[in-house]
Amino acid sequence: MIYLDNSATTKPHPEALESFNQVAAAYFANPSSIHQFGGQAERLLAAAREQAAGLLGVLPQEVIFTSGGTEGNNLAIKGIALQHQSRGRHIITTAVEHPSVLEACESLEQLGFEITVLPVDQFGLISLEALEQAIRPDTILISILHVNNEIGTVQDIKAIAELAKRHPKLFLHIDYVQGLGKVPLVLKDLGVDLCTMSGHKIHGLKGTGLLYVRSGVKLFSLLHGGQQEFGIRSGTENLAGAVSFVKALRLIKERERAEAGRLNKLKEDLIARLAVMEGVQINTPEQSAPHIVNFSVPGIKPEVLIHMLGEQGIYISTKSACSSKEQSESRVLAACGHEPARASSGLRVSFSYDTTASELDQFIACVSEAIEQLLNIMR
Amino acid sequence: MIYLDNSATTKPHPEALESFNQVAAAYFANPSSIHQFGGQAERLLAAAREQAAGLLGVLPQEVIFTSGGTEGNNLAIKGIALQHQSRGRHIITTAVEHPSVLEACESLEQLGFEITVLPVDQFGLISLEALEQAIRPDTILISILHVNNEIGTVQDIKAIAELAKRHPKLFLHIDYVQGLGKVPLVLKDLGVDLCTMSGHKIHGLKGTGLLYVRSGVKLFSLLHGGQQEFGIRSGTENLAGAVSFVKALRLIKERERAEAGRLNKLKEDLIARLAVMEGVQINTPEQSAPHIVNFSVPGIKPEVLIHMLGEQGIYISTKSACSSKEQSESRVLAACGHEPARASSGLRVSFSYDTTASELDQFIACVSEAIEQLLNIMR
Repeated sequence: MIYLDNSATTKPHPEALESFNQVAAAYFANPSSIHQFGGQAERLLAAAREQAAGLLGVLPQEVIFTSGGTEGNNLAIKGIALQHQSRGRHIITTAVEHPSVLEACESLEQLGFEITVLPVDQFGLISLEALEQAIRPDTILISILHVNNEIGTVQDIKAIAELAKRHPKLFLHIDYVQGLGKVPLVLKDLGVDLCTMSGHKIHGLKGTGLLYVRSGVKLFSLLHGGQQEFGIRSGTENLAGAVSFVKALRLIKERERAEAGRLNKLKEDLIARLAVMEGVQINTPEQSAPHIVNFSVPGIKPEVLIHMLGEQGIYISTKSACSSKEQSESRVLAACGHEPARASSGLRVSFSYDTTASELDQFIACVSEAIEQLLNIMR
Repeated sequence: MIYLDNSATTKPHPEALESFNQVAAAYFANPSSIHQFGGQAERLLAAAREQAAGLLGVLPQEVIFTSGGTEGNNLAIKGIALQHQSRGRHIITTAVEHPSVLEACESLEQLGFEITVLPVDQFGLISLEALEQAIRPDTILISILHVNNEIGTVQDIKAIAELAKRHPKLFLHIDYVQGLGKVPLVLKDLGVDLCTMSGHKIHGLKGTGLLYVRSGVKLFSLLHGGQQEFGIRSGTENLAGAVSFVKALRLIKERERAEAGRLNKLKEDLIARLAVMEGVQINTPEQSAPHIVNFSVPGIKPEVLIHMLGEQGIYISTKSACSSKEQSESRVLAACGHEPARASSGLRVSFSYDTTASELDQFIACVSEAIEQLLNIMR
């Protein structure tokens, strides 16, 4: 199998799975139980939280373990909106967000909120001027993704945060799900209030994630109850999940430091080889994350190509997995201004640090043959 | 170790953990990915959902996999409230709910909802007359727990559902977290609209759960995004978690059929032996779930007794784990009308099907010695 759909999900690292197992079997007590066995679980949770905080350069009390990226994005957006609505009901986001951000925002329209969706340029980048102009006295939240999950564009979060800081009454949330472990983002002193991460995108387990909530930021909880996670996210802690998340985080941070450059070279090489193929248009901008290559072959249905590659054990995707079953064009490619034929034929190749040059050679051989075959049929 | 805190959480069944492992390692694709590997994951998810539906006697499309009981309770309560608020903003619940129900309801007061909290009698039971009287034209939801997590009282859900059915504009949610696998509740044709279950209370894994949502019931999602789980609960599916939940469900249903009677005898025997001890007052009513025994020793701090037992590897608890770190009296025992000395000295022993008579003998020996010792100190 040549698995090139790592932006949809990754193979769990054996060590992350092993950590999960050990904790689930040996430390199964409820961390909220006051007996000694519960105390052991509570201490292990605190240690995991401290380790996560250390790896991210934040405070332990700013680490909220969640069930994943969708929960993190929804908790950040709805949590700010519902908690601070007396201050204002205007939210700014972008046209290239993950569905869990865009639909969380849209759901708030039903509750009386107003959403401004910033456009992007051909590279998928927002304009800082447009962002500044969109800010109103009643704006309470800006939610922007760091690395775009379909084409790999990296927004300039530092500049966005600088701008946001000049409006101290609004909160800034970053969807860091695709960037984590691939494109560094130093949260300390950045001015970001909330930052969403997911475990299963970094070789951790599904059902795990982390929301960074800057000290002092108040949220309306989505999950009320036993006051776990500092009252922000109640529910018996998934201790094994948290420990496995932190293990995956440590491992991917090591590889990020050592191998992001190599991954980026693989990406550039792949783009160069795809770009010369007949009928292929590259959608990923030059400045982009090291693990995502998006291209279109107008006229060819991406589902057909994906199926042909899948027959040979090569797995790539169309848009984000979370919107892949809609038949329409890619919202992200359309937002970049691409015409319908291009926007509806996008294909995404996404690497992990285990992806090799030889795997990409095989992919190139198979995809060029498949494209040629399909174009010939159409001629 | 003699683990008698199974209402807080249970030891994962090795088969449930093994299922989790196999799926996490071998079927790690995103079920939403359209390639063949994603298709395998999607089919496995559908099979797990069908099996869960079969075990519960409901339709597959009524099974929503969640991250646990707190999420299920919050999704049911807030989901109904936010979706149907134009119809009315009145919710009825009881004084003996789990914190995840009571605090979810209270959080809605901040958003303009009104909550009626029904009192209970000395056994922890609500009165059907009081429930009927509490229903108003603007009532949209009744949320009631099935088995009380602290004292084991079983509400008459059948009668409550009959009553609710006569008011077709309101929804009925049952918190079935403590009852699942211990006290049968047949959902089909019962008239229950929503029913919350948790994995880690039935020897499944933390971070897993199931919300039954009757066909046609519309909820405002807490987690918007990729439209997973029929659009009710977005987010990449925790497939390994879902499969492990269903495995745990199948196993506990088998034991429920075969062993609930035996467990109930253990409970009655334990109550009889505790009742004759000096200073002990039994809080669990005669008609109750087979796995929970609650008693008070007024004058003795429950934390001290729990610590003494813990030193000998015997683990029991005070109130629910989710409220165990508050120093105040038990809300449930107070609601039953017990005086402060009794309500603040409650202890809970909770069994699993692996609990043996010999373990309870050891518990009785240790607890009677500890109580005698503590009462002597106080004399």
